[in-house]
Amino acid sequence: MGASIVKRKVLAAIIAVTAAGAAIAAEMKPEYLVKVRQSGYTFMAWNMGKIKAQTVENTAPFNKDEVAAAANAIAAIANSGMGALYAPGTEKATGWHETKALPELFTDKEGVKKVAMAFNKEANELAKVAAGGDAAAIKAQYGKVGEACKGCHDKFKAKEEKK
Amino acid sequence: MGASIVKRKVLAAIIAVTAAGAAIAAEMKPEYLVKVRQSGYTFMAWNMGKIKAQTVENTAPFNKDEVAAAANAIAAIANSGMGALYAPGTEKATGWHETKALPELFTDKEGVKKVAMAFNKEANELAKVAAGGDAAAIKAQYGKVGEACKGCHDKFKAKEEKK
Repeated sequence: MGASIVKRKVLAAIIAVTAAGAAIAAEMKPEYLVKVRQSGYTFMAWNMGKIKAQTVENTAPFNKDEVAAAANAIAAIANSGMGALYAPGTEKATGWHETKALPELFTDKEGVKKVAMAFNKEANELAKVAAGGDAAAIKAQYGKVGEACKGCHDKFKAKEEKK
Repeated sequence: MGASIVKRKVLAAIIAVTAAGAAIAAEMKPEYLVKVRQSGYTFMAWNMGKIKAQTVENTAPFNKDEVAAAANAIAAIANSGMGALYAPGTEKATGWHETKALPELFTDKEGVKKVAMAFNKEANELAKVAAGGDAAAIKAQYGKVGEACKGCHDKFKAKEEKK
């Protein structure tokens, strides 16, 4: 084939590689990763709120399907590998808002592992209990998930946004 | 009991009712609901990206547990009753950013039901297929979920944020 075709093919290959690189870079951008992790927690909190209203505060009628679906969403989000969203570069990045993650979250690997595993264990247990449809049991397990959330927040989350 | 104790009890009751009302109001605030729905889509998109990278673009090695967890998160979020996040008042509200929902999303109930049911069906099927661990089958079903996303976006989502 002619030199111009070769040049065109090489150029096409370079563009393809560059485009792929750009796509990967966008997915790895700290701002994006922080947005995603904030989204995960926001969505879990909404579902926690529904379970709380229906089993703890009784401000909404207990609907076992709704509660089971909410518990499943929390567990599935917890199980989806959110650790990747704390990649290097995300320590001080702004997602939807400034990160509230404290510096220790990126250095105390053992401590983080402990609270993360505790949360995942309780969240998965909540999904299991919620499938059973017993409001009192769900309320009790909801409390354990809340404690697991707090266990991480107390150690690794700032009370206010960092300025 | 004395008049001052009665007054104190009445006051406490009023504060309790007002606090509960404020809590419910906060949960129903359009800005909050829009934040939550934007969070749900952002988190699903991250998981779609992981499945795409591992089964369609092959820019990351295929890891069946990771893909299954990603598919589970998408399905569980889809199943969690996101319709409630489109309550009256959320038509033009700003969450993390201005909503891209078009006016038709709040009026064309039949059309919305159709695309929502199609998306949920394909998302649940993706979770089922992903559990099987066959990369080619996951890639095919990932395509169907993508089409279902697009089916809604084409009809009900603005290309740009509304000004």
